[in-house]
Amino acid sequence: MRIVVDAMGGDNAPHAIVEGAILAAREYNIEIILTGKSEVVLAQLDKFKGWRDLPIRVEHAEEVVEMDDVPAKALRKKKNSSMKVGVDFIKSGEADAFVSAGNTGAVLAYSTVILRPLKGVDRPAIAVQLPTSKGSAIMLDAGANVDCKALQLFQFGIMGHVLAKFVLEKESPEVGLLSIGEEDGKGNEITKTVFHMLKKSHINFIGNVEAKEVYRGHADVIVCDGFTGNVALKISQSMAEMISRHLKKVFKSNWLSKLGYLLIKPYLDKEKKSIDYSETGGAPLLGVNGVCIIAHGRSNPKAIKNAINRARELIEKKINEHIMEDIESNLKDLDIWSRGALWKQLKDIAFSPKPEENNNNNHHQEQEVDHPPEEAQASTKDEESTETEPKT
Amino acid sequence: MRIVVDAMGGDNAPHAIVEGAILAAREYNIEIILTGKSEVVLAQLDKFKGWRDLPIRVEHAEEVVEMDDVPAKALRKKKNSSMKVGVDFIKSGEADAFVSAGNTGAVLAYSTVILRPLKGVDRPAIAVQLPTSKGSAIMLDAGANVDCKALQLFQFGIMGHVLAKFVLEKESPEVGLLSIGEEDGKGNEITKTVFHMLKKSHINFIGNVEAKEVYRGHADVIVCDGFTGNVALKISQSMAEMISRHLKKVFKSNWLSKLGYLLIKPYLDKEKKSIDYSETGGAPLLGVNGVCIIAHGRSNPKAIKNAINRARELIEKKINEHIMEDIESNLKDLDIWSRGALWKQLKDIAFSPKPEENNNNNHHQEQEVDHPPEEAQASTKDEESTETEPKT
Repeated sequence: MRIVVDAMGGDNAPHAIVEGAILAAREYNIEIILTGKSEVVLAQLDKFKGWRDLPIRVEHAEEVVEMDDVPAKALRKKKNSSMKVGVDFIKSGEADAFVSAGNTGAVLAYSTVILRPLKGVDRPAIAVQLPTSKGSAIMLDAGANVDCKALQLFQFGIMGHVLAKFVLEKESPEVGLLSIGEEDGKGNEITKTVFHMLKKSHINFIGNVEAKEVYRGHADVIVCDGFTGNVALKISQSMAEMISRHLKKVFKSNWLSKLGYLLIKPYLDKEKKSIDYSETGGAPLLGVNGVCIIAHGRSNPKAIKNAINRARELIEKKINEHIMEDIESNLKDLDIWSRGALWKQLKDIAFSPKPEENNNNNHHQEQEVDHPPEEAQASTKDEESTETEPKT
Repeated sequence: MRIVVDAMGGDNAPHAIVEGAILAAREYNIEIILTGKSEVVLAQLDKFKGWRDLPIRVEHAEEVVEMDDVPAKALRKKKNSSMKVGVDFIKSGEADAFVSAGNTGAVLAYSTVILRPLKGVDRPAIAVQLPTSKGSAIMLDAGANVDCKALQLFQFGIMGHVLAKFVLEKESPEVGLLSIGEEDGKGNEITKTVFHMLKKSHINFIGNVEAKEVYRGHADVIVCDGFTGNVALKISQSMAEMISRHLKKVFKSNWLSKLGYLLIKPYLDKEKKSIDYSETGGAPLLGVNGVCIIAHGRSNPKAIKNAINRARELIEKKINEHIMEDIESNLKDLDIWSRGALWKQLKDIAFSPKPEENNNNNHHQEQEVDHPPEEAQASTKDEESTETEPKT
């Protein structure tokens, strides 16, 4: 098994990435290719005695995608970036997975455009593992797709089910749809449609899940569009940060509270570990032809090691084969359930020619089809649409 | 000034509500009308010596809207509920504000249908006050409108500006649009449109605000649709709960950590207070003809007292007059800026005859008594879709 790691991506690149790769090469039986400026990467590697005995090699890439680069521009202009060189290894079959802690949008753009979506998948989704009171849960999409159609959310549900089943090893993962109420009828226009689609699927769909239930571990998989998912993740982080600031203030109040802090510190550190992002590794970009792991931008060596391990698991568990199988079988039944207009739309969207065959517009994010799903079809929404946005 | 309080609404009704009303009547120079089953409410009042010297009276209402009642049904069937009787007092002008800790959807339905939206406001929004590291911020909409159009979000921005200016007393409140990136172009189709609209407004629009900035106090007002806002609020709550569970575990680990807890407890309690919802009172339903405060379902007497105080502030500050003024002046400039299709939409939506005068082309679904919110939303599904045509 061979895993490519973007040595230049992330706030702590290249040192944390290189160290993480060394940890992984030592611990797991895998080969690692580090892509990036070879002199820089080699200099980092040389800090670790005996690294040349490990199955690690460096592949030179002249350019670096910066954290604040505009993804679409990076994709067009940086043809020799460590990301591009890395993803090309997956495309050519020379390596099995790609790991990067770099600019998320750029990883997404390179992976989607170069690797293409899996058969039956309209849009790839970022699947984040969240800590919950019962262990962990997967939330997807965490930000790859800001405007989602019902069919895409349906596919996210299937992909999440597969990930939870094979990677979290839950026998029959409970899949929930993030909404504003638990009752069947609650939600926005899109979630209401997805609700019915998921209800007809073979997966263990438990219905709507309210956001207040997420960290209670009410569901193993939480399905949402990338806008909502991104907001949900980041506001959780913001709340945790605020509480942490308050706690620090409490601990520093005076010598009594400082003493109190010293007494609880060992237990606090232990509990902290259970919600530490670096323990879970990165977030898989599900639904592309190949395994791609997006690690946290602030990844430390342990986070990189765990992200590489997550990639290894996805390859070993043949996650993409399972996704294709499950999407196909579930879409078939969707056909039986809903004939006519909906099925036509599903076919159009899910099985339309991929962008390379379609036209020159090679950014998958921009890939669109003639017939957007359900809502748009029958409506007179031209009058109502927000589409009339002024383009200044 | 006369404030009506729904004595039967909330998890702790009627005792917490009655006690909160007594606290408010003692502290502020206001009259209070408690609506609900008179024998029950009077029995609660009689627990407080000397309540008859306070400017409190009880108005009988035979029915109670339960927390799990379907709002649309409650609206249709419970014509004698404590909520309906309460809101009617505002409609008739006999009272100035309505406060309820009951079923949020039902408060929303009664208020919107009976009081009608303010001139220039398409949809009322729930404005929640969040604690931040810099003090507090207002987020709206927190759940009144699941599918929003750009113009509605624009109006939320104006209303939030007014609330922050007059109630939080910020001279030039910084209004941000909740999105998935700070850069101008980031967001979904709706937020991208709203971005341009708010940029042209007179308010201090600071652009997109990422969710991770919310509790850092990056903006005074955070604008979002009700689906996203509801998810953001509830997942924050879920995260806080999880951390609290972990902390409890830490504190209970053994006798050392228990001792540590005792040492920090006083400081912890003080910090807790700064993020306690009951300190901020309830959430105003902005954009209806009248002042309506939705208190937390779990409100204790202090929360009710503060919700009543919030109502008092909104009346004193003439919040609705300011909203109408600001919406009108900002919409006018939107006209100059964008001619053609957008303006047609704005006119259709914002200035179309109210439903009572025009039943055929009704954008104010929630105003029609015969068509309570949920049904109306469903029946105009096609028109209401937030789904946009694919861009090419």
